[in-house]
Amino acid sequence: MVVSIVKQQALFIGIDGGGSKCKATIVDANNKILGTGISGPANPLHGYQQAIYSIEQSALLALADANLAEETIKQLIAGVGLAGVNLPSQMQQMQQWVHPFKKMFLTTDLSIACLGAHDGQDGAILITGTGSCGYSHVNNQEFFIGGHGFPHGDQGSGAWTGLQVVSTVLRSLDGLEVESMMNQMLLLKLKCTNYLEIVETIARKPASFFAQLASIAFDCAGQGDELALSIVEKGANYMSKLANKLWLQQPPRLSLIGGLTPVIKPYLDSKVSRCLLPPIHPPEIGAVIFAKQQLDYQA
Amino acid sequence: MVVSIVKQQALFIGIDGGGSKCKATIVDANNKILGTGISGPANPLHGYQQAIYSIEQSALLALADANLAEETIKQLIAGVGLAGVNLPSQMQQMQQWVHPFKKMFLTTDLSIACLGAHDGQDGAILITGTGSCGYSHVNNQEFFIGGHGFPHGDQGSGAWTGLQVVSTVLRSLDGLEVESMMNQMLLLKLKCTNYLEIVETIARKPASFFAQLASIAFDCAGQGDELALSIVEKGANYMSKLANKLWLQQPPRLSLIGGLTPVIKPYLDSKVSRCLLPPIHPPEIGAVIFAKQQLDYQA
Repeated sequence: MVVSIVKQQALFIGIDGGGSKCKATIVDANNKILGTGISGPANPLHGYQQAIYSIEQSALLALADANLAEETIKQLIAGVGLAGVNLPSQMQQMQQWVHPFKKMFLTTDLSIACLGAHDGQDGAILITGTGSCGYSHVNNQEFFIGGHGFPHGDQGSGAWTGLQVVSTVLRSLDGLEVESMMNQMLLLKLKCTNYLEIVETIARKPASFFAQLASIAFDCAGQGDELALSIVEKGANYMSKLANKLWLQQPPRLSLIGGLTPVIKPYLDSKVSRCLLPPIHPPEIGAVIFAKQQLDYQA
Repeated sequence: MVVSIVKQQALFIGIDGGGSKCKATIVDANNKILGTGISGPANPLHGYQQAIYSIEQSALLALADANLAEETIKQLIAGVGLAGVNLPSQMQQMQQWVHPFKKMFLTTDLSIACLGAHDGQDGAILITGTGSCGYSHVNNQEFFIGGHGFPHGDQGSGAWTGLQVVSTVLRSLDGLEVESMMNQMLLLKLKCTNYLEIVETIARKPASFFAQLASIAFDCAGQGDELALSIVEKGANYMSKLANKLWLQQPPRLSLIGGLTPVIKPYLDSKVSRCLLPPIHPPEIGAVIFAKQQLDYQA
Protein backbone atom coordinates (compact mmCIF):
# COMPACT_ATOMS: atom_id res chain seq x y z
CA MET A 1 0.00 0.00 0.00
CA VAL A 2 2.74 2.42 0.96
CA VAL A 3 4.50 1.78 -2.32
CA SER A 4 1.43 2.34 -4.44
CA ILE A 5 0.82 5.71 -2.76
CA VAL A 6 4.46 6.66 -3.33
CA LYS A 7 4.15 5.66 -6.96
CA GLN A 8 0.93 7.62 -7.46
CA GLN A 9 2.39 10.85 -6.21
CA ALA A 10 5.87 10.38 -7.61
CA LEU A 11 7.55 12.04 -10.52
CA PHE A 12 9.70 9.77 -12.63
CA ILE A 13 12.55 10.62 -14.95
CA GLY A 14 13.82 8.25 -17.60
CA ILE A 15 17.34 8.90 -18.85
CA ASP A 16 19.02 7.33 -21.85
CA GLY A 17 22.74 8.13 -21.82
CA GLY A 18 24.77 7.22 -24.89
CA GLY A 19 28.13 8.04 -26.42
CA SER A 20 26.96 11.17 -28.21
CA LYS A 21 23.94 12.40 -26.25
CA CYS A 22 21.84 12.00 -23.14
CA LYS A 23 18.02 12.17 -23.34
CA ALA A 24 15.74 12.65 -20.35
CA THR A 25 11.95 12.48 -20.10
CA ILE A 26 9.94 13.34 -16.98
CA VAL A 27 6.61 11.58 -16.54
CA ASP A 28 4.05 11.46 -13.79
CA ALA A 29 2.76 8.30 -12.11
CA ASN A 30 0.30 7.86 -14.99
CA ASN A 31 3.07 8.03 -17.59
CA LYS A 32 2.00 11.43 -18.81
CA ILE A 33 5.04 13.15 -20.35
CA LEU A 34 5.73 16.46 -18.57
CA GLY A 35 9.02 17.51 -20.15
CA THR A 36 12.12 16.38 -22.02
CA GLY A 37 15.79 17.43 -22.15
CA ILE A 38 18.80 16.54 -24.26
CA SER A 39 22.42 17.07 -23.25
CA GLY A 40 25.89 15.78 -24.24
CA PRO A 41 27.75 12.45 -24.11
CA ALA A 42 27.05 10.21 -21.13
CA ASN A 43 29.12 7.06 -21.63
CA PRO A 44 31.25 6.90 -18.45
CA LEU A 45 33.86 4.79 -20.26
CA HIS A 46 34.65 7.87 -22.33
CA GLY A 47 34.71 10.19 -19.30
CA TYR A 48 33.06 9.81 -15.92
CA GLN A 49 32.84 13.54 -15.16
CA GLN A 50 31.29 14.26 -18.56
CA ALA A 51 28.79 11.45 -18.04
CA ILE A 52 27.50 12.62 -14.64
CA TYR A 53 27.43 16.21 -15.90
CA SER A 54 25.35 15.21 -18.94
CA ILE A 55 22.93 13.14 -16.85
CA GLU A 56 22.26 16.01 -14.40
CA GLN A 57 22.09 18.52 -17.25
CA SER A 58 19.51 16.49 -19.18
CA ALA A 59 17.41 16.26 -16.00
CA LEU A 60 17.58 20.03 -15.39
CA LEU A 61 16.62 20.70 -19.01
CA ALA A 62 13.67 18.33 -18.72
CA LEU A 63 12.58 20.04 -15.48
CA ALA A 64 12.73 23.44 -17.17
CA ASP A 65 10.76 22.06 -20.12
CA ALA A 66 8.14 20.80 -17.63
CA ASN A 67 8.01 24.19 -15.91
CA LEU A 68 9.22 22.58 -12.70
CA ALA A 69 11.70 24.19 -10.31
CA GLU A 70 15.33 22.97 -10.31
CA GLU A 71 14.97 21.73 -6.72
CA THR A 72 12.34 19.28 -7.92
CA ILE A 73 15.30 17.15 -9.06
CA LYS A 74 15.44 15.91 -5.45
CA GLN A 75 11.94 14.45 -5.81
CA LEU A 76 12.56 12.58 -9.04
CA ILE A 77 12.75 8.81 -9.11
CA ALA A 78 15.26 8.20 -11.87
CA GLY A 79 15.66 5.25 -14.19
CA VAL A 80 19.00 5.63 -15.91
CA GLY A 81 20.26 3.48 -18.77
CA LEU A 82 23.85 4.11 -19.74
CA ALA A 83 26.23 2.93 -22.43
CA GLY A 84 29.44 1.53 -20.96
CA VAL A 85 28.03 0.23 -17.67
CA ASN A 86 27.96 -3.31 -19.03
CA LEU A 87 31.62 -3.10 -17.95
CA PRO A 88 31.72 -3.92 -14.21
CA SER A 89 34.29 -1.18 -13.45
CA GLN A 90 32.05 1.47 -15.02
CA MET A 91 28.92 0.20 -13.28
CA GLN A 92 30.73 0.28 -9.94
CA GLN A 93 31.99 3.83 -10.44
CA MET A 94 28.56 5.10 -11.51
CA GLN A 95 26.88 3.46 -8.52
CA GLN A 96 29.17 5.43 -6.21
CA TRP A 97 27.95 8.72 -7.71
CA VAL A 98 26.27 10.96 -5.12
CA HIS A 99 23.41 11.70 -7.51
CA PRO A 100 20.87 14.52 -7.09
CA PHE A 101 17.74 12.36 -7.43
CA LYS A 102 15.44 10.96 -4.76
CA LYS A 103 16.32 7.49 -5.99
CA MET A 104 18.33 6.31 -8.94
CA PHE A 105 18.05 2.92 -10.60
CA LEU A 106 20.93 2.26 -12.93
CA THR A 107 21.14 -0.22 -15.78
CA THR A 108 22.53 -0.50 -19.29
CA ASP A 109 21.31 1.51 -22.27
CA LEU A 110 20.43 -1.84 -23.84
CA SER A 111 18.19 -2.87 -20.98
CA ILE A 112 16.10 0.32 -21.11
CA ALA A 113 15.93 0.26 -24.91
CA CYS A 114 14.58 -3.28 -24.76
CA LEU A 115 12.10 -2.48 -21.97
CA GLY A 116 10.89 0.51 -23.97
CA ALA A 117 10.65 -1.32 -27.29
CA HIS A 118 8.52 -4.08 -25.75
CA ASP A 119 6.59 -2.03 -23.16
CA GLY A 120 8.31 -3.71 -20.22
CA GLN A 121 7.79 -7.24 -21.56
CA ASP A 122 10.33 -9.81 -22.75
CA GLY A 123 11.90 -9.19 -26.14
CA ALA A 124 15.04 -8.51 -28.11
CA ILE A 125 16.56 -5.51 -29.83
CA LEU A 126 19.07 -4.95 -32.59
CA ILE A 127 20.64 -1.49 -32.29
CA THR A 128 22.46 0.41 -34.97
CA GLY A 129 23.21 4.05 -34.25
CA THR A 130 26.70 5.40 -33.56
CA GLY A 131 27.48 1.88 -32.30
CA SER A 132 25.77 -1.46 -32.86
CA CYS A 133 24.82 -4.53 -30.85
CA GLY A 134 22.17 -7.06 -30.00
CA TYR A 135 20.40 -7.66 -26.70
CA SER A 136 17.57 -9.79 -25.39
CA HIS A 137 15.73 -10.14 -22.11
CA VAL A 138 13.77 -13.38 -21.93
CA ASN A 139 12.65 -15.21 -18.76
CA ASN A 140 14.83 -12.98 -16.59
CA GLN A 141 17.89 -13.88 -18.65
CA GLU A 142 19.84 -11.12 -20.32
CA PHE A 143 21.83 -11.91 -23.45
CA PHE A 144 24.33 -9.53 -25.08
CA ILE A 145 26.02 -9.87 -28.44
CA GLY A 146 28.39 -7.54 -30.30
CA GLY A 147 28.75 -3.96 -29.14
CA HIS A 148 32.47 -4.09 -28.45
CA GLY A 149 33.17 -0.51 -29.42
CA PHE A 150 35.08 1.56 -31.93
CA PRO A 151 37.25 1.01 -33.95
CA HIS A 152 37.51 -2.75 -33.34
CA GLY A 153 33.83 -3.72 -33.15
CA ASP A 154 30.29 -2.49 -33.74
CA GLN A 155 30.18 -3.65 -37.33
CA GLY A 156 27.12 -2.34 -39.17
CA SER A 157 26.97 0.79 -36.99
CA GLY A 158 27.29 4.40 -38.10
CA ALA A 159 30.84 4.76 -36.77
CA TRP A 160 31.95 1.48 -38.36
CA THR A 161 30.31 2.39 -41.68
CA GLY A 162 31.93 5.84 -41.66
CA LEU A 163 35.33 4.32 -40.91
CA GLN A 164 34.91 1.93 -43.86
CA VAL A 165 33.97 4.89 -46.08
CA VAL A 166 37.17 6.74 -45.16
CA SER A 167 39.36 3.65 -45.48
CA THR A 168 37.84 2.65 -48.83
CA VAL A 169 37.96 6.17 -50.29
CA LEU A 170 41.65 6.51 -49.34
CA ARG A 171 42.44 3.20 -51.08
CA SER A 172 40.37 4.23 -54.09
CA LEU A 173 42.12 7.61 -54.35
CA ASP A 174 45.41 5.65 -54.23
CA GLY A 175 44.25 3.60 -57.23
CA LEU A 176 44.19 0.42 -55.15
CA GLU A 177 40.42 0.07 -55.57
CA VAL A 178 38.05 1.01 -58.39
CA GLU A 179 36.68 4.54 -58.60
CA SER A 180 33.78 5.24 -56.29
CA MET A 181 31.09 7.91 -56.05
CA MET A 182 32.03 8.03 -52.38
CA ASN A 183 35.38 9.67 -53.21
CA GLN A 184 33.86 12.98 -54.30
CA MET A 185 31.14 12.85 -51.66
CA LEU A 186 33.65 12.40 -48.84
CA LEU A 187 35.92 15.17 -50.14
CA LEU A 188 32.90 17.48 -50.34
CA LYS A 189 31.54 16.53 -46.92
CA LEU A 190 34.90 17.09 -45.23
CA LYS A 191 35.59 20.22 -47.34
CA CYS A 192 38.86 18.67 -48.52
CA THR A 193 40.50 18.80 -51.94
CA ASN A 194 42.83 15.79 -51.67
CA TYR A 195 43.67 12.71 -49.65
CA LEU A 196 46.24 14.48 -47.46
CA GLU A 197 43.58 16.88 -46.24
CA ILE A 198 41.29 13.94 -45.50
CA VAL A 199 44.03 12.32 -43.41
CA GLU A 200 44.58 15.55 -41.46
CA THR A 201 40.85 16.12 -40.95
CA ILE A 202 40.07 12.69 -39.55
CA ALA A 203 43.13 12.28 -37.30
CA ARG A 204 42.18 11.38 -33.72
CA LYS A 205 38.45 11.80 -34.37
CA PRO A 206 35.97 9.90 -32.18
CA ALA A 207 33.31 7.40 -33.20
CA SER A 208 30.64 10.12 -33.37
CA PHE A 209 32.61 11.92 -36.11
CA PHE A 210 32.80 8.79 -38.26
CA ALA A 211 29.10 8.07 -37.67
CA GLN A 212 28.32 11.32 -39.49
CA LEU A 213 30.00 9.91 -42.60
CA ALA A 214 27.88 6.75 -42.73
CA SER A 215 25.22 8.32 -44.93
CA ILE A 216 27.79 8.55 -47.74
CA ALA A 217 27.88 4.74 -47.95
CA PHE A 218 24.09 4.41 -47.89
CA ASP A 219 23.54 7.21 -50.43
CA CYS A 220 26.07 5.77 -52.86
CA ALA A 221 24.94 2.18 -52.31
CA GLY A 222 21.42 3.30 -53.21
CA GLN A 223 22.80 4.53 -56.53
CA GLY A 224 24.53 1.20 -57.17
CA ASP A 225 28.11 2.17 -56.32
CA GLU A 226 30.05 -1.08 -56.05
CA LEU A 227 32.39 -0.20 -53.16
CA ALA A 228 29.59 1.50 -51.17
CA LEU A 229 27.35 -1.53 -51.66
CA SER A 230 30.06 -3.83 -50.39
CA ILE A 231 30.42 -1.76 -47.18
CA VAL A 232 26.67 -1.59 -46.56
CA GLU A 233 26.16 -5.29 -47.32
CA LYS A 234 29.02 -6.30 -45.01
CA GLY A 235 27.54 -4.23 -42.19
CA ALA A 236 23.99 -5.48 -42.79
CA ASN A 237 25.22 -9.06 -43.00
CA TYR A 238 26.78 -8.67 -39.54
CA MET A 239 23.51 -7.21 -38.17
CA SER A 240 21.59 -10.18 -39.65
CA LYS A 241 24.02 -12.56 -37.92
CA LEU A 242 23.32 -10.76 -34.62
CA ALA A 243 19.59 -11.15 -35.23
CA ASN A 244 19.97 -14.89 -35.82
CA LYS A 245 21.84 -15.25 -32.50
CA LEU A 246 19.07 -13.28 -30.79
CA TRP A 247 16.36 -15.58 -32.20
CA LEU A 248 18.03 -18.52 -30.45
CA GLN A 249 16.98 -16.86 -27.18
CA GLN A 250 13.33 -17.15 -28.35
CA PRO A 251 12.25 -13.55 -27.67
CA PRO A 252 8.51 -12.89 -28.23
CA ARG A 253 9.35 -9.70 -30.18
CA LEU A 254 12.41 -8.30 -32.01
CA SER A 255 12.83 -4.62 -32.84
CA LEU A 256 15.49 -2.79 -34.82
CA ILE A 257 16.30 0.60 -33.29
CA GLY A 258 18.85 3.42 -33.67
CA GLY A 259 19.56 6.07 -36.24
CA LEU A 260 20.50 3.74 -39.11
CA THR A 261 17.26 1.74 -38.83
CA PRO A 262 15.51 3.06 -41.97
CA VAL A 263 18.60 2.93 -44.22
CA ILE A 264 20.03 -0.45 -43.19
CA LYS A 265 16.73 -2.34 -43.03
CA PRO A 266 16.48 -2.95 -46.81
CA TYR A 267 19.90 -4.67 -46.77
CA LEU A 268 19.15 -7.12 -43.92
CA ASP A 269 18.53 -10.78 -44.66
CA SER A 270 14.82 -10.85 -45.65
CA LYS A 271 14.19 -13.63 -43.09
CA VAL A 272 15.32 -11.11 -40.45
CA SER A 273 13.66 -7.97 -41.75
CA ARG A 274 10.19 -9.48 -42.09
CA CYS A 275 10.24 -10.54 -38.40
CA LEU A 276 11.03 -7.06 -37.09
CA LEU A 277 8.32 -5.31 -35.07
CA PRO A 278 8.34 -1.57 -34.40
CA PRO A 279 9.49 -0.44 -30.93
CA ILE A 280 6.55 0.58 -28.71
CA HIS A 281 8.32 3.30 -26.66
CA PRO A 282 11.69 5.06 -26.90
CA PRO A 283 14.52 4.08 -24.49
CA GLU A 284 13.83 6.99 -22.09
CA ILE A 285 10.38 5.58 -21.41
CA GLY A 286 12.04 2.17 -21.05
CA ALA A 287 14.13 3.80 -18.31
CA VAL A 288 10.94 4.93 -16.53
CA ILE A 289 9.49 1.42 -16.86
CA PHE A 290 12.74 0.10 -15.34
CA ALA A 291 12.52 2.48 -12.38
CA LYS A 292 8.90 1.51 -11.73
CA GLN A 293 9.75 -2.21 -11.93
CA GLN A 294 12.62 -1.74 -9.47
CA LEU A 295 10.35 0.14 -7.05
CA ASP A 296 7.96 -2.81 -7.18
CA TYR A 297 10.79 -5.28 -6.50
CA GLN A 298 11.85 -3.21 -3.50
CA ALA A 299 8.33 -3.18 -2.08
CA MET B 1 86.30 24.12 -51.49
CA VAL B 2 84.81 25.78 -48.43
CA VAL B 3 82.04 23.23 -48.31
CA SER B 4 84.35 20.26 -48.57
CA ILE B 5 86.42 21.55 -45.64
CA VAL B 6 83.24 22.05 -43.63
CA LYS B 7 82.14 18.53 -44.49
CA GLN B 8 85.46 16.99 -43.54
CA GLN B 9 85.48 18.50 -40.08
CA ALA B 10 81.80 18.20 -39.45
CA LEU B 11 79.88 15.86 -37.21
CA PHE B 12 76.59 14.60 -38.61
CA ILE B 13 73.58 13.22 -36.83
CA GLY B 14 70.91 11.19 -38.58
CA ILE B 15 67.55 11.04 -36.81
CA ASP B 16 64.65 8.76 -37.64
CA GLY B 17 61.54 9.87 -35.76
CA GLY B 18 58.50 7.62 -35.85
CA GLY B 19 55.25 7.12 -33.99
CA SER B 20 56.72 4.92 -31.28
CA LYS B 21 60.41 5.82 -31.10
CA CYS B 22 63.14 8.17 -32.29
CA LYS B 23 66.58 6.80 -33.28
CA ALA B 24 69.68 8.95 -33.67
CA THR B 25 73.14 8.05 -35.00
CA ILE B 26 76.15 10.38 -34.93
CA VAL B 27 78.76 9.85 -37.65
CA ASP B 28 81.88 11.71 -38.66
CA ALA B 29 82.59 13.06 -42.14
CA ASN B 30 83.82 9.60 -43.19
CA ASN B 31 80.57 7.99 -42.05
CA LYS B 32 82.21 6.31 -39.08
CA ILE B 33 79.51 5.68 -36.44
CA LEU B 34 80.43 7.43 -33.16
CA GLY B 35 77.29 6.88 -31.09
CA THR B 36 73.59 6.10 -31.13
CA GLY B 37 70.56 7.02 -29.02
CA ILE B 38 66.92 5.96 -28.85
CA SER B 39 64.11 8.01 -27.27
CA GLY B 40 60.30 8.17 -27.41
CA PRO B 41 57.63 9.00 -30.01
CA ALA B 42 58.48 11.75 -32.51
CA ASN B 43 55.51 12.03 -34.87
CA PRO B 44 54.48 15.71 -34.52
CA LEU B 45 50.95 14.87 -35.65
CA HIS B 46 50.53 12.99 -32.37
CA GLY B 47 52.12 15.79 -30.31
CA TYR B 48 54.51 18.53 -31.35
CA GLN B 49 56.07 19.02 -27.87
CA GLN B 50 56.65 15.27 -27.49
CA ALA B 51 58.23 15.15 -30.96
CA ILE B 52 60.77 17.94 -30.41
CA TYR B 53 61.55 16.56 -26.95
CA SER B 54 62.21 13.07 -28.37
CA ILE B 55 64.40 14.43 -31.17
CA GLU B 56 66.60 16.43 -28.80
CA GLN B 57 66.66 13.55 -26.30
CA SER B 58 67.80 11.02 -28.92
CA ALA B 59 70.60 13.43 -29.94
CA LEU B 60 71.77 13.89 -26.33
CA LEU B 61 71.73 10.11 -25.80
CA ALA B 62 73.78 9.61 -28.96
CA LEU B 63 76.26 12.28 -27.83
CA ALA B 64 76.64 10.56 -24.45
CA ASP B 65 77.12 7.21 -26.22
CA ALA B 66 79.84 8.86 -28.36
CA ASN B 67 81.51 10.31 -25.24
CA LEU B 68 80.90 13.80 -26.57
CA ALA B 69 79.86 16.75 -24.39
CA GLU B 70 76.23 17.91 -24.45
CA GLU B 71 77.26 21.29 -25.93
CA THR B 72 78.53 19.46 -29.01
CA ILE B 73 74.86 19.36 -30.07
CA LYS B 74 75.45 22.90 -31.39
CA GLN B 75 78.06 21.56 -33.82
CA LEU B 76 75.95 18.75 -35.25
CA ILE B 77 74.61 18.93 -38.78
CA ALA B 78 71.33 17.08 -38.47
CA GLY B 79 69.37 15.13 -41.03
CA VAL B 80 65.94 14.49 -39.57
CA GLY B 81 63.28 12.25 -41.10
CA LEU B 82 59.94 12.38 -39.36
CA ALA B 83 56.64 10.59 -39.63
CA GLY B 84 53.76 13.02 -40.05
CA VAL B 85 55.62 15.80 -41.89
CA ASN B 86 54.20 14.64 -45.23
CA LEU B 87 51.28 16.76 -43.97
CA PRO B 88 52.05 20.40 -44.89
CA SER B 89 50.79 21.75 -41.55
CA GLN B 90 53.15 19.47 -39.63
CA MET B 91 56.12 20.24 -41.87
CA GLN B 92 55.52 23.97 -41.40
CA GLN B 93 55.30 23.71 -37.62
CA MET B 94 58.45 21.58 -37.40
CA GLN B 95 60.38 23.99 -39.61
CA GLN B 96 59.60 26.79 -37.18
CA TRP B 97 61.24 24.85 -34.34
CA VAL B 98 64.24 26.71 -32.85
CA HIS B 99 66.34 23.54 -32.89
CA PRO B 100 69.62 23.03 -30.99
CA PHE B 101 71.70 21.86 -33.98
CA LYS B 102 74.15 23.77 -36.14
CA LYS B 103 71.93 23.04 -39.10
CA MET B 104 68.86 20.89 -39.47
CA PHE B 105 67.59 19.41 -42.72
CA LEU B 106 64.08 18.08 -42.34
CA THR B 107 62.27 15.54 -44.50
CA THR B 108 59.88 12.62 -44.16
CA ASP B 109 60.69 9.33 -42.47
CA LEU B 110 60.00 7.73 -45.85
CA SER B 111 62.57 9.81 -47.65
CA ILE B 112 65.41 8.91 -45.24
CA ALA B 113 64.38 5.24 -45.16
CA CYS B 114 64.58 5.15 -48.97
CA LEU B 115 67.90 7.02 -49.10
CA GLY B 116 69.30 4.61 -46.52
CA ALA B 117 67.95 1.46 -48.17
CA HIS B 118 69.50 2.42 -51.51
CA ASP B 119 72.66 4.20 -50.27
CA GLY B 120 71.49 7.60 -51.49
CA GLN B 121 70.48 6.34 -54.95
CA ASP B 122 67.05 6.11 -56.56
CA GLY B 123 64.80 3.33 -55.34
CA ALA B 124 61.57 2.37 -53.64
CA ILE B 125 60.58 1.04 -50.24
CA LEU B 126 57.66 -0.85 -48.82
CA ILE B 127 57.37 -0.28 -45.08
CA THR B 128 55.48 -2.36 -42.59
CA GLY B 129 56.13 -1.64 -38.94
CA THR B 130 53.59 -0.01 -36.62
CA GLY B 131 52.21 1.61 -39.80
CA SER B 132 52.57 0.72 -43.47
CA CYS B 133 53.10 2.51 -46.78
CA GLY B 134 55.00 2.64 -50.04
CA TYR B 135 57.41 5.28 -51.28
CA SER B 136 59.72 5.78 -54.22
CA HIS B 137 62.25 8.37 -55.26
CA VAL B 138 63.10 8.13 -58.96
CA ASN B 139 64.50 10.87 -61.18
CA ASN B 140 63.87 13.49 -58.51
CA GLN B 141 60.23 12.49 -58.33
CA GLU B 142 58.78 11.36 -55.03
CA PHE B 143 55.81 9.01 -55.04
CA PHE B 144 53.78 8.10 -51.96
CA ILE B 145 51.15 5.43 -51.62
CA GLY B 146 49.14 4.25 -48.62
CA GLY B 147 50.23 5.27 -45.13
CA HIS B 148 47.05 7.05 -44.17
CA GLY B 149 47.19 6.17 -40.51
CA PHE B 150 45.34 4.26 -37.84
CA PRO B 151 42.60 3.01 -37.62
CA HIS B 152 41.40 3.85 -41.15
CA GLY B 153 44.51 2.98 -43.19
CA ASP B 154 47.92 1.29 -43.05
CA GLN B 155 46.58 -2.12 -44.03
CA GLY B 156 49.20 -4.84 -43.62
CA SER B 157 50.93 -2.95 -40.78
CA GLY B 158 51.39 -4.10 -37.20
CA ALA B 159 48.69 -1.78 -35.86
CA TRP B 160 46.21 -2.80 -38.59
CA THR B 161 46.96 -6.49 -38.05
CA GLY B 162 46.54 -6.17 -34.28
CA LEU B 163 43.23 -4.36 -34.74
CA GLN B 164 41.99 -7.18 -37.00
CA VAL B 165 43.07 -9.72 -34.37
CA VAL B 166 41.01 -7.97 -31.69
CA SER B 167 38.01 -7.48 -33.96
CA THR B 168 38.08 -11.07 -35.22
CA VAL B 169 38.57 -12.60 -31.76
CA LEU B 170 35.63 -10.60 -30.37
CA ARG B 171 33.39 -11.86 -33.21
CA SER B 172 34.68 -15.40 -32.71
CA LEU B 173 34.03 -15.29 -28.94
CA ASP B 174 30.49 -14.10 -29.83
CA GLY B 175 30.04 -17.20 -32.00
CA LEU B 176 29.74 -15.07 -35.14
CA GLU B 177 32.93 -16.59 -36.61
CA VAL B 178 34.50 -20.04 -36.29
CA GLU B 179 36.76 -20.84 -33.32
CA SER B 180 40.30 -19.52 -33.63
CA MET B 181 43.60 -20.24 -31.90
CA MET B 182 43.88 -16.46 -31.67
CA ASN B 183 41.11 -16.35 -29.05
CA GLN B 184 43.14 -17.98 -26.30
CA MET B 185 46.36 -16.26 -27.38
CA LEU B 186 44.79 -12.82 -27.18
CA LEU B 187 43.18 -13.51 -23.81
CA LEU B 188 46.56 -14.72 -22.50
CA LYS B 189 48.53 -11.82 -23.97
CA LEU B 190 46.15 -9.24 -22.50
CA LYS B 191 45.84 -11.19 -19.22
CA CYS B 192 42.06 -11.25 -19.67
CA THR B 193 39.59 -14.00 -18.87
CA ASN B 194 36.67 -12.91 -21.06
CA TYR B 195 35.57 -10.58 -23.83
CA LEU B 196 34.45 -7.81 -21.48
CA GLU B 197 37.94 -7.58 -20.05
CA ILE B 198 39.36 -7.41 -23.57
CA VAL B 199 37.01 -4.53 -24.38
CA GLU B 200 38.07 -2.66 -21.24
CA THR B 201 41.77 -3.32 -21.83
CA ILE B 202 41.87 -2.06 -25.40
CA ALA B 203 39.64 1.03 -24.97
CA ARG B 204 41.33 4.19 -26.28
CA LYS B 205 44.63 2.42 -26.96
CA PRO B 206 46.96 3.88 -29.63
CA ALA B 207 48.32 2.22 -32.77
CA SER B 208 51.50 1.12 -30.97
CA PHE B 209 49.43 -0.98 -28.54
CA PHE B 210 47.66 -2.81 -31.36
CA ALA B 211 50.98 -3.33 -33.19
CA GLN B 212 52.11 -5.46 -30.25
CA LEU B 213 49.22 -7.85 -30.93
CA ALA B 214 50.16 -8.46 -34.58
CA SER B 215 52.39 -11.43 -33.79
CA ILE B 216 49.28 -13.35 -32.67
CA ALA B 217 47.99 -13.33 -36.26
CA PHE B 218 51.34 -14.40 -37.74
CA ASP B 219 51.92 -17.12 -35.12
CA CYS B 220 48.46 -18.61 -35.61
CA ALA B 221 48.57 -18.25 -39.39
CA GLY B 222 51.83 -20.20 -39.35
CA GLN B 223 49.95 -23.01 -37.61
CA GLY B 224 47.18 -22.93 -40.23
CA ASP B 225 44.50 -21.10 -38.26
CA GLU B 226 41.82 -20.11 -40.78
CA LEU B 227 40.86 -16.69 -39.37
CA ALA B 228 44.48 -15.72 -38.69
CA LEU B 229 45.46 -16.71 -42.23
CA SER B 230 42.69 -14.56 -43.66
CA ILE B 231 43.95 -11.50 -41.72
CA VAL B 232 47.58 -12.05 -42.72
CA GLU B 233 46.71 -12.73 -46.36
CA LYS B 234 44.51 -9.63 -46.56
CA GLY B 235 47.34 -7.48 -45.17
CA ALA B 236 49.97 -9.06 -47.40
CA ASN B 237 47.72 -8.72 -50.43
CA TYR B 238 47.47 -4.98 -49.75
CA MET B 239 51.27 -4.73 -49.42
CA SER B 240 51.67 -6.56 -52.74
CA LYS B 241 49.28 -4.07 -54.35
CA LEU B 242 51.44 -1.22 -52.99
CA ALA B 243 54.52 -2.91 -54.48
CA ASN B 244 52.87 -3.17 -57.90
CA LYS B 245 52.08 0.56 -57.82
CA LEU B 246 55.69 1.28 -56.85
CA TRP B 247 57.02 -0.77 -59.81
CA LEU B 248 55.13 1.55 -62.16
CA GLN B 249 57.57 4.27 -61.06
CA GLN B 250 60.43 2.06 -62.38
CA PRO B 251 62.71 2.19 -59.32
CA PRO B 252 66.11 0.49 -59.79
CA ARG B 253 65.73 -1.25 -56.41
CA LEU B 254 62.84 -2.14 -54.09
CA SER B 255 63.32 -3.00 -50.40
CA LEU B 256 60.87 -4.17 -47.75
CA ILE B 257 61.63 -2.64 -44.35
CA GLY B 258 60.06 -2.37 -40.90
CA GLY B 259 59.45 -4.74 -38.03
CA LEU B 260 57.03 -7.06 -39.83
CA THR B 261 59.43 -7.69 -42.75
CA PRO B 262 60.46 -11.26 -41.87
CA VAL B 263 56.97 -12.47 -40.96
CA ILE B 264 54.96 -10.89 -43.79
CA LYS B 265 57.42 -11.64 -46.60
CA PRO B 266 56.31 -15.28 -47.07
CA TYR B 267 52.73 -14.12 -47.69
CA LEU B 268 53.51 -11.51 -50.36
CA ASP B 269 52.75 -12.23 -54.00
CA SER B 270 55.77 -14.28 -55.15
CA LYS B 271 56.29 -11.90 -58.10
CA VAL B 272 56.81 -9.17 -55.50
CA SER B 273 58.87 -11.06 -52.93
CA ARG B 274 61.46 -12.33 -55.42
CA CYS B 275 62.20 -8.76 -56.57
CA LEU B 276 62.93 -7.45 -53.09
CA LEU B 277 66.51 -6.43 -52.33
CA PRO B 278 67.82 -5.97 -48.79
CA PRO B 279 68.15 -2.39 -47.52
CA ILE B 280 71.80 -1.20 -47.54
CA HIS B 281 71.65 1.14 -44.51
CA PRO B 282 69.07 1.84 -41.80
CA PRO B 283 66.94 5.03 -41.99
CA GLU B 284 69.16 6.98 -39.53
CA ILE B 285 72.07 6.64 -41.96
CA GLY B 286 69.65 7.65 -44.72
CA ALA B 287 69.08 10.82 -42.69
CA VAL B 288 72.83 11.49 -42.64
CA ILE B 289 72.98 10.92 -46.42
CA PHE B 290 70.10 13.40 -46.77
CA ALA B 291 71.92 16.04 -44.69
CA LYS B 292 75.09 15.61 -46.77
CA GLN B 293 73.13 15.85 -50.04
CA GLN B 294 71.43 19.03 -48.82
CA LEU B 295 74.78 20.57 -47.85
CA ASP B 296 76.02 19.85 -51.37
CA TYR B 297 72.90 21.46 -52.91
CA GLN B 298 73.47 24.56 -50.76
CA ALA B 299 77.11 24.83 -51.87
